[in-house]
Amino acid sequence: MTQSFDVVVIGAGPGGYIAAIRAGQLGLSVACVEGNAYDDPKGEPRLGGTCLNVGCIPSKALLASSEEFEKITHHAEDHGITVKGASIDVGKMVARKDGIVGKMTGGIQYLFKKNKVTLLKGYASFAGKAEGGFNVSVKAADGTVSAVVAKQVIIASGSKARHLPGIPVDNKLICDNEGALKFGDVPKRLGVIGAGVIGLELGSVWRRLGAEVTVLEALPNFLAACDESVGKEMLKIFKGQGLNISLGVKIGEVKAGKKAVSIAYTDADGKAQTLDCDKLIVSVGRVPYTDGLNLDSIGLKTNERGMIDVDAHCQTLVAGVFAVGDVVRGAMLAHKAEEEGVMVAEIIAGQKGHCNYDAIPWVIYTSPEVAWVGKTEQDLKASGRAYKAGQFPFMANGRALGQGDSQGFVKVLADAKTDEVLGVHIINSHASDLIAEAVMAIEFKASSEDIGRICHAHPSLSEVVKEAALACDKRQLNM
Amino acid sequence: MTQSFDVVVIGAGPGGYIAAIRAGQLGLSVACVEGNAYDDPKGEPRLGGTCLNVGCIPSKALLASSEEFEKITHHAEDHGITVKGASIDVGKMVARKDGIVGKMTGGIQYLFKKNKVTLLKGYASFAGKAEGGFNVSVKAADGTVSAVVAKQVIIASGSKARHLPGIPVDNKLICDNEGALKFGDVPKRLGVIGAGVIGLELGSVWRRLGAEVTVLEALPNFLAACDESVGKEMLKIFKGQGLNISLGVKIGEVKAGKKAVSIAYTDADGKAQTLDCDKLIVSVGRVPYTDGLNLDSIGLKTNERGMIDVDAHCQTLVAGVFAVGDVVRGAMLAHKAEEEGVMVAEIIAGQKGHCNYDAIPWVIYTSPEVAWVGKTEQDLKASGRAYKAGQFPFMANGRALGQGDSQGFVKVLADAKTDEVLGVHIINSHASDLIAEAVMAIEFKASSEDIGRICHAHPSLSEVVKEAALACDKRQLNM
Repeated sequence: MTQSFDVVVIGAGPGGYIAAIRAGQLGLSVACVEGNAYDDPKGEPRLGGTCLNVGCIPSKALLASSEEFEKITHHAEDHGITVKGASIDVGKMVARKDGIVGKMTGGIQYLFKKNKVTLLKGYASFAGKAEGGFNVSVKAADGTVSAVVAKQVIIASGSKARHLPGIPVDNKLICDNEGALKFGDVPKRLGVIGAGVIGLELGSVWRRLGAEVTVLEALPNFLAACDESVGKEMLKIFKGQGLNISLGVKIGEVKAGKKAVSIAYTDADGKAQTLDCDKLIVSVGRVPYTDGLNLDSIGLKTNERGMIDVDAHCQTLVAGVFAVGDVVRGAMLAHKAEEEGVMVAEIIAGQKGHCNYDAIPWVIYTSPEVAWVGKTEQDLKASGRAYKAGQFPFMANGRALGQGDSQGFVKVLADAKTDEVLGVHIINSHASDLIAEAVMAIEFKASSEDIGRICHAHPSLSEVVKEAALACDKRQLNM
Repeated sequence: MTQSFDVVVIGAGPGGYIAAIRAGQLGLSVACVEGNAYDDPKGEPRLGGTCLNVGCIPSKALLASSEEFEKITHHAEDHGITVKGASIDVGKMVARKDGIVGKMTGGIQYLFKKNKVTLLKGYASFAGKAEGGFNVSVKAADGTVSAVVAKQVIIASGSKARHLPGIPVDNKLICDNEGALKFGDVPKRLGVIGAGVIGLELGSVWRRLGAEVTVLEALPNFLAACDESVGKEMLKIFKGQGLNISLGVKIGEVKAGKKAVSIAYTDADGKAQTLDCDKLIVSVGRVPYTDGLNLDSIGLKTNERGMIDVDAHCQTLVAGVFAVGDVVRGAMLAHKAEEEGVMVAEIIAGQKGHCNYDAIPWVIYTSPEVAWVGKTEQDLKASGRAYKAGQFPFMANGRALGQGDSQGFVKVLADAKTDEVLGVHIINSHASDLIAEAVMAIEFKASSEDIGRICHAHPSLSEVVKEAALACDKRQLNM
């Protein structure tokens, strides 16, 4: 018998599983289809998509472990702590990460039950329109195909790592994000192609554990999506930490041997160079994942960038079919996908879901972290908007000094005339949490004076947000 | 010649130094009078008052060092890190703290110069009203007395540790906050009288470094100022960490020997007990400090609690004399004093300064930290206000698990009818920063739905604030 649902969600990553749960909360009958890409060896489903399995969550676990190792080996002495010898068991570190991933992905199964979401194991494929909806077939790992009918569909199929022609990823010697999360030991020499978020996060992890890391980036600017002052400062910080970073390079031939990789490239000065390394991470972005969806059958197709076109409410060109997350325009960020998932579930349930794309924070989880929301200074210059900027360093903050954590700054950009906060940029090891206040400020169209007049706990890192806001009017108090 | 100023600020703690800087920014001629209580041995002034010298800043430095030590000795293994032997040199740890204090207090001298604030070294005393203002005499350490005339005065003389009759504090064997910050080594057995913020913070520091710590508290409830659920949870957490805490005790005779202290007390069951310890911290609150101010001479006096009475704008009963910070009603918190300092400086300069006392965060800097803003559940019950509560644990947050930091929760209280956020309560090692978003929510009279609809970075601890807000309407997504 064909099962019917009000909503079928394709994909159980952050966009999909959240959409399914919200739809279930709103009383819709809902199924979520998820393949077996991340299942554990026993066939136990591992929900949560890239984010939980091979993205945000495991990388943050490794970041925490490697940060702890670096603190012990390099900074304990600042506190008067003597450590006789510290070593890390990479296997145990990775097992800890796997334990956390298992806990989180298992949690989603519980949430599905609680919210009456039916999990359909297998890969989804459209099979044309049905009366009052869409036919979706689900192909399980054992080859069984089952048919379901969905009144409405939410495509949340996510993205996959972009690979480069001529650089075959085997996830042993040459790795994308998946392989780079499960090295068996610390490579002596690690190469990274691409100085994006993933390359920098993972490069930082292995550097802290002792690898000599070289990052090759094609663009001449570092972290070009960030505010320029942030990119500049982070380049200085990373170089100070011992990351070798070459910008403006052109990658040539990549030769994989048995135990090492050799990368020929041309540097920014046009000189031919070679990088020899024991492992190579290729992190040159991600591409939307729509394999096997058979969009044609319902009259949909992907655009020239491989994405599914949607409007501001994530409605595709076919009524009743929505798409959210990495498979559509906008930032490839888990929390952006989640917001879209909630929005679409609410719209399907007849509510007025919306998503404020101007108030989505960005985070780079290096150490220190980078986080921002709203416009960069170069955005504002380009658009000709008159603005004022206030900046304040963590070096002048008592809590940051106490924690031995005084790199970075907060920069607030506000409209020159109305004082509305237009952008907030943070470099700090807790930037991912400090940005929350800034996002709220932008949602409420706060002025920089508003932030400056709000009482901030002393001593806390958040005082730097306040001071940067005050600095927009040159009235910071502690600098 | 008598110097004249638009404003004389008495005290260079957070309330006073901030008021002086703000007054300077606004073009007023301003002097700040500070005694030599914290001067370094060479007579170099150490500005910043209790907070910078013997309060918030040094305690946070010690908290960071002792947390690092505990991580190395107890939690490194979770990450697969083996440490052969770790020891702490208390002298170095204390020297690091002193370095941070020196940097911060030195910073204030720079700020005074930058903002044209005249520093008058010595103890201030009113000497009656003058034509168009007040006579203030300043007695320097060498006994020299100089006279100044102030059009307006801001009293920011702060507070001092409350001592108990029969328990003589020598800051060697029996210590208040000052002595407890400079122990030469880790006491084997540490007694703490008073389970308030200071006792718990410093008790935690020395427990982590190896002391066996016993806290004796007269009240039957633990952390009675907190939301009850927070107090309950923290008692469990502290006990789990190995702090011995006895509530509802009655302290009897305290006998100080040469190298140990013996405290007789009656426990909650009425049984006679004795606590023997190598050091004793007495932390039973603080009292306003008005010694030598000679308030009588201008017609002012302190109230029955030793405070100077003020209105909502920190105006005393004498026009032209203001008082801010610990010496007036309200929370004895540095950031509350700072807000008052700014408010008063702006009022004196003819602006409309104000201070929203409903939006002042509280923080207890233990590990994990406790922070809250607004009403507690027991406040709301007592006032008969209909409310809803949403709570979400860090245990269900990926970042918290990644950091090995999953104790505690966020609890949001909102009006049952309007959904306005009335209180937010957080237990987490980063509570002091996470509370910033909640304070802003209360300033903007946000609803719990507002917080729930704001995009929070994933993965971040701040997601728990969002989930707790969603939980007010039973629509949390990840639990």
